[in-house]
Amino acid sequence: MHDISKASFRLSDEQRIDWLRLIRSQNVGPRTFRTLINHFGGARAALEALPGLARRGGAAAPKICSRQDAEREIAAAKRRGIALVAMGEADYPQRLAMIDDAPPLISLRGDTAALTMPLIAIVGSRNASAAGIKITQMLTQGLTAAGFAVVSGLARGIDAAAHRASAATGTIAVLAGGQDKIYPAEHESLLEALLGNGVALSEMPLGWEPRARDFPRRNRLISGLALGVVIIEAAKRSGSLITARLAAEQGREVFAVPGSPLDPRAEGTNGLIKQGATPVTEAADIISVVEPIMTRPISGQSLSFGSPDGELCEPGSGSELGSELGGEPGAEPQADERARIVGLLSPTPVSLDDLVRLSQSSPRAVRMVLLELEIAGRLERHGGGLVSLI
Amino acid sequence: MHDISKASFRLSDEQRIDWLRLIRSQNVGPRTFRTLINHFGGARAALEALPGLARRGGAAAPKICSRQDAEREIAAAKRRGIALVAMGEADYPQRLAMIDDAPPLISLRGDTAALTMPLIAIVGSRNASAAGIKITQMLTQGLTAAGFAVVSGLARGIDAAAHRASAATGTIAVLAGGQDKIYPAEHESLLEALLGNGVALSEMPLGWEPRARDFPRRNRLISGLALGVVIIEAAKRSGSLITARLAAEQGREVFAVPGSPLDPRAEGTNGLIKQGATPVTEAADIISVVEPIMTRPISGQSLSFGSPDGELCEPGSGSELGSELGGEPGAEPQADERARIVGLLSPTPVSLDDLVRLSQSSPRAVRMVLLELEIAGRLERHGGGLVSLI
Repeated sequence: MHDISKASFRLSDEQRIDWLRLIRSQNVGPRTFRTLINHFGGARAALEALPGLARRGGAAAPKICSRQDAEREIAAAKRRGIALVAMGEADYPQRLAMIDDAPPLISLRGDTAALTMPLIAIVGSRNASAAGIKITQMLTQGLTAAGFAVVSGLARGIDAAAHRASAATGTIAVLAGGQDKIYPAEHESLLEALLGNGVALSEMPLGWEPRARDFPRRNRLISGLALGVVIIEAAKRSGSLITARLAAEQGREVFAVPGSPLDPRAEGTNGLIKQGATPVTEAADIISVVEPIMTRPISGQSLSFGSPDGELCEPGSGSELGSELGGEPGAEPQADERARIVGLLSPTPVSLDDLVRLSQSSPRAVRMVLLELEIAGRLERHGGGLVSLI
Repeated sequence: MHDISKASFRLSDEQRIDWLRLIRSQNVGPRTFRTLINHFGGARAALEALPGLARRGGAAAPKICSRQDAEREIAAAKRRGIALVAMGEADYPQRLAMIDDAPPLISLRGDTAALTMPLIAIVGSRNASAAGIKITQMLTQGLTAAGFAVVSGLARGIDAAAHRASAATGTIAVLAGGQDKIYPAEHESLLEALLGNGVALSEMPLGWEPRARDFPRRNRLISGLALGVVIIEAAKRSGSLITARLAAEQGREVFAVPGSPLDPRAEGTNGLIKQGATPVTEAADIISVVEPIMTRPISGQSLSFGSPDGELCEPGSGSELGSELGGEPGAEPQADERARIVGLLSPTPVSLDDLVRLSQSSPRAVRMVLLELEIAGRLERHGGGLVSLI
C-alpha cells in the first residue's frame, strides 16, 4: 500500500488510456470514477462493467469513450505540450487530491513548479472597480512577496488582475473548458504570457467549449487547490460566492475584503464576513491565518492503492474508496432486492442510511444499486450524501 | 435593602447638596465617590472625612466643594430647566447605573422619556464622507422604526447625522462639558432642536468648558447608556475607537460598518471587525444581536443601599460597594502598616492582590490606604484593578 499523496505512483500508458476513457464516458464523474475503480479494481475492468451496470440500472449502455478517442486526445495534448496527469502522480497537486470530487486526470500546460508553492486563490467580480483592481494588486503583491503562488479563474476583472500581479512569481489559471478553448477569448494572450511562471489547469477535454454550468464546477478546483480563497468584490449571488461556499465545504479558509454598505460590489463580501469569513485589508491578514496550516501535513481523505507496483486497488482493500462498496466481495443484488431499493427512491433526496434501514439490504447492496442507477443516468447525488432519482 | 436599579429611591434636598459637594470635590471621581459613600455611610460623613484621608495620604486637604457652590449649581440648573438626577433615582438610566464608574449625579435637559427606550449608540468620524452620512441616516432610520432611541456625542459628522435622523423619535446627546458649554458651539441650535424628543446629558457642572481629556471620559457614558455601540467611519486612533473599547469593557455590543481597505475612514471600523466587532450593513444586523439582550433584566453590579428609608448604606452592609473596603468595620491602618503599603507602590502599576500579599495586611487596610492616597491626589487607577503612584 502506498499513499497517493506521496506521489510515488505513475500510470502506464495503457492505464492512462483506460483512465481517460473511463472519466470521459457518459455518467461517470469524479466520484463515480472512484467508486468504479475501487469496486472493479481498475479502469479497464470498470469500462467492461459499464454496460451491465447501466442495464441493471434500467437504461441502455452509456456512451463509452472509445480507445481511439482517448488515444487521439492524448496525442493532441502531447502535440500542444499539455500533460495529462493522474491523481497520485508527481505533478498532481497534493491538496487538490484531498477534495471529495477531485478529477482523476487533469491537463497541465506551462511551468508546473507553481503548483508546488503554497497556493492562495483570489477571485472576484468580472465587473471590478478601479479600487477592486488596486486592492487585488496590493494583496497579490503581498502574497507573492511572502512566497505564495496565486490561483484564479482567468476571468475579466479581479481574476485577471490577480494573475497579472502574480505572473512574475507563480500563477495558476484554472479553466472551465478545454486547454484550447480559453474563456474569455480575449484572455488567450494573457494566458500565454502567464505560462512562463505559471500553469493552466483543466479537467475538461481538448476542444471543450465551456458551458455556463462548467464554471461553478471549475470553481471547486480553484478552491481545492488553495489553502484559502480570497473574495474581492462580489455582488449577491455571484460565482465568487459559489467558490467561497465550495471552499468552506472543502475545509479551506475563506477570506473576504470588506466594502461600504453602499457599494453593491461589496454586498457579497460583507455578507461572507457576517457569516464568519476572515476580513482582509492587507496580505498579512491572510498569511497569519494560513501559515499554521502550511506547516501541517496535508491530510484528509487520503487514498490508498492496493498493490505496491502501481496496480489499482482491489475491492475490499480496506481503503476508504474500497469501503465505499462495502468490505466483502459478493454477488450482485438480486432482482427483488434491487427493485425494493429502487422503489424507495424518488425525486426527493434521501440518505444512504435511510435507504439501508428501509430496504433492510446491506450498505454494499444499496451502494451497488445506486452505482447502477448513476451509470444509467438516473441518479442525482446531492450534498450531505443525499441521492434522488432524476 | 432595596435595589438601586428599581429606582424607588429619592435623595432629600440636603442629601443632594452633599452628593453634589462630594462629587465636585478635588480627587473624588465616580469610583472614589462610591467607596467613600459606602465606607462612611453617606456623603455628609465622607465630606467630613476628606481632610483626614488626604492628610494620612500625605497631602494637604483637597479642595472641597462648598455648600454655597453646590447650592448655586443646583439653583442655576433649576433656572435653566436642568434636573440633577442621582444614581438610583427614577430618571437615572438603569443601564448606565451598571457601569463601573457611573456618575453619581447627572444633569438632564429635555424630554427624559427617550432614556426609557432601548438605546443604541451611533458614533463616528467628525470628518465624515457623504457615504458615511448616508449610512448613518439609513441605520438610524432602521433603528428608530424598530423603537430604539439613539445616543451620540453631538460632534460634527456622524454624531450630528445620527442625532438629526433620530430627532423625531428619541435622541440622547451626551456632552463632554457643562449643559451651557455646548461643543461644538455651532451645534447649540441643533441641540435645542433635539430636546423636543430628546435629552442632553452631562456629568459636568454648569460652566464647564470641555477639555480634550473630557471627551474620552464622556465616551464611557455614551457606551454605558446603550445596549451596543455602532461605529461608522473611524480612522486609526480616533475617539470612536475609544468608545468601542469602553463599550467592550462594559460588556456592551460593538458594531462596526465595514468599508474599503483603500478608504482611510474605514481603517478603524475594519480593524474592529477583525477584532470581533459585528459587521453591520443594515439595521437588522444590530437589532438581531441586541433583541435577546433587551428582554433580559438589567443586571451586573447591582447596588444596594443599607436602609429602606433612603438613608445611604452603612459600611460593611454586605453590599458590593460595602465590601469594597472589607466586610468588618475596624480601626484605620496604623502608621507602620500604612508606610509598608505605600512603600510597595511605585509608578509601575500593581494589583491590589499583590499589595495584600506583599504587605501581609488585610484587603481592607490596603483599600483604605489606597483611598487616602487617592484623596491626596497621589494615586492613579488603571484598568484591571491596577494602581500606581502618580
